[in-house]
Amino acid sequence: MALIVQKYGGTSVGTVERIKNAAKRISETVNEGNRVVVVVSAMGKSTDQLVNLANEITEQPSKREMDMLLTTGEQVSISLLTMALQQLGYEAVSLTGWQAGIQTEDCFGNARITAIHTERIQEALRLNKIVVVAGFQGVTAGGEIATLGRGGSDTTAVALAAALKAEKCEIFTDVKGVYTTDPRVVSHARKLEAISYDEMLEMANLGAGVLHPRAVEFAKNYHVTLEVRSSLEKESGTIVEEEPTMEQNLIVKGLAFKSNITKVTVSGMPNRLTTLADVFTLLASNGINVDIIIQEANGETVNISFSISSDVLDDALQVLESNRSRLAFEAIYHQQELAKVSIVGSGMISNPGVAAQMFDVLANSGVMIEMVSTSEIKISTVVAQDKMTTAIEGLHEAFKLDLREPIAQ
Amino acid sequence: MALIVQKYGGTSVGTVERIKNAAKRISETVNEGNRVVVVVSAMGKSTDQLVNLANEITEQPSKREMDMLLTTGEQVSISLLTMALQQLGYEAVSLTGWQAGIQTEDCFGNARITAIHTERIQEALRLNKIVVVAGFQGVTAGGEIATLGRGGSDTTAVALAAALKAEKCEIFTDVKGVYTTDPRVVSHARKLEAISYDEMLEMANLGAGVLHPRAVEFAKNYHVTLEVRSSLEKESGTIVEEEPTMEQNLIVKGLAFKSNITKVTVSGMPNRLTTLADVFTLLASNGINVDIIIQEANGETVNISFSISSDVLDDALQVLESNRSRLAFEAIYHQQELAKVSIVGSGMISNPGVAAQMFDVLANSGVMIEMVSTSEIKISTVVAQDKMTTAIEGLHEAFKLDLREPIAQ
Repeated sequence: MALIVQKYGGTSVGTVERIKNAAKRISETVNEGNRVVVVVSAMGKSTDQLVNLANEITEQPSKREMDMLLTTGEQVSISLLTMALQQLGYEAVSLTGWQAGIQTEDCFGNARITAIHTERIQEALRLNKIVVVAGFQGVTAGGEIATLGRGGSDTTAVALAAALKAEKCEIFTDVKGVYTTDPRVVSHARKLEAISYDEMLEMANLGAGVLHPRAVEFAKNYHVTLEVRSSLEKESGTIVEEEPTMEQNLIVKGLAFKSNITKVTVSGMPNRLTTLADVFTLLASNGINVDIIIQEANGETVNISFSISSDVLDDALQVLESNRSRLAFEAIYHQQELAKVSIVGSGMISNPGVAAQMFDVLANSGVMIEMVSTSEIKISTVVAQDKMTTAIEGLHEAFKLDLREPIAQ
Repeated sequence: MALIVQKYGGTSVGTVERIKNAAKRISETVNEGNRVVVVVSAMGKSTDQLVNLANEITEQPSKREMDMLLTTGEQVSISLLTMALQQLGYEAVSLTGWQAGIQTEDCFGNARITAIHTERIQEALRLNKIVVVAGFQGVTAGGEIATLGRGGSDTTAVALAAALKAEKCEIFTDVKGVYTTDPRVVSHARKLEAISYDEMLEMANLGAGVLHPRAVEFAKNYHVTLEVRSSLEKESGTIVEEEPTMEQNLIVKGLAFKSNITKVTVSGMPNRLTTLADVFTLLASNGINVDIIIQEANGETVNISFSISSDVLDDALQVLESNRSRLAFEAIYHQQELAKVSIVGSGMISNPGVAAQMFDVLANSGVMIEMVSTSEIKISTVVAQDKMTTAIEGLHEAFKLDLREPIAQ
């Protein structure tokens, strides 16, 4: 009898009908002879409604009280889903974060799980109950209710799967799985059967929003097999595991992209040991997140280019200008209307020609590359916004992402 | 520096504006040099909305899951009220039932408080914080979330006041205090300055809905001074305490009434030892609540009359008829369209003429009395529904309830 952890996101429990549907899905897994622990998010837009209420009271609610407020959302979901399971004739019990023994560090709004005391869940499983746990929340050592921050319910599910040594952690969502790229942009984007943790991490960090990076990291560290699948359709989804048993011969596994990027170049700074640190410490301490960084030294002077979200351009320029004398730069240039396009795949490590092939494809598609950044399993390029779709389609075709490679190849 | 417990009901925190208003009231009490513990109900209609959600899922939600669901309502209120206090510049902290150490017996939907572990509240008070506690909820020894049932937030407030040895427990509500009778029926009904626990208990049990009887009982047992007052107006309300220091010379303190009553008479039963027990055990085991009971024995046979809510008349008749042979009665009569009118006052104990005066007043007002029931501090009469208002007005005037008696009298 296998133990399976299932996670249902906000849209999957967004209405009474969907809650009943989720209950049916869970009951099917039980009927197949499995024990099931379910992790649930808050219903659809309910978290937003609570945030709005708080904002009507104060512009700056304390983090502790926000956590107190927001965790009610998941508490509503677990009780309703448990009622739906009981209505179908199954024994089920709901548990809040503190009841489920989910211990977090001592902070609010973005706490990390430090331990899970599984006794209470184990006891309920022994009594053949379906256990429904509130996602996104835990309790500090001091007995404070804390939320896990963004993507928190995914993390709850993976952490529970690890602590309970579950066979699999199924993440139910409103898409069918992990795609080679966004199907809304590339119509022949294909659902992957399997992907490695590292590939999934790169995809997630690059903006493919099906799984939160923190949850993937957790799964990787604790060897939890994930499956991303649809809560509305029966077909199997995408398996995320250490060594994908299928499709391992695909060099490039997926394509991610992000719009609204600006490239900033600070030129003519003295080439000191601390120059890089000076610039990026300054930006970080002002809350400006930098993505790609390129340094180009010309003997005594150095030019530094970096990419940022266009939203923070004004802030970045102002911070740099007001430190002009200390940084001693000659000029600042910036280029807006850019996008980042990345290819991801662990097969790249042993295929050094991939970057060249990518650049070749983009050149042949008439796409000029403004910046490049590489990791072991990812190559990112920054291109003009109006060339983004051309770049994605060219790469999707060139790397044969719409075809399933035969396993034996 | 006095410690005051304040309780704000659902209408007092029904909107963001009212929450801000409650925060202002609390801050005024703090500014007067008091430490304050606040108990809050769920916002206005939010509990009803949650109940509706549950009913969309299942007709018979389990009590445990209902408690899990409903307790989110107070958790939302405490966080929002705490934010509002912080916005006014006050240090405040919200606590759920389990965080506040409110221990209940091991049942759901209607649990009683068994103990309060006040360490966490005391610690917050030591740090000069306003403590905002979720009403209506506690935690069982097994770590289950349980609600206290109807009037639960009143009980939470009184129990906390007792455990913390507070100087006073103020119940803020949408009326100005306890009235001699319902001001919507008798326009010259008067707000009482003080009333004893027993009088309040009788008034509450008789349907004067400002305070739940369970909370009054708790206050009486632990000698907690209560004040019922308006959350919208500044004036002082009605003090409930052991020996009211004011108005002690009023023999009759208040007038309560209830419509929709039916009198049922079961006649000609054999006068056995077990006859009364037989009839009322049968009714109770079928969920039929009986109020006034009158037994009239005629040698070998006995007639029993009782009053019930008209809603359960059909059930009562059916249960009795289907046990006709066992009960061996001759006939059943019933009389609908009745109402109960009661006078309450601890001064009656030493004034034996009060009942006679009441009957006299009713007779002079042309009101026929169908049934009578008396306790030490209460006399109830059942009269025709269409004479109810006449009865109330006559009694209100005869017992001078609209006049404040001079204390020295």
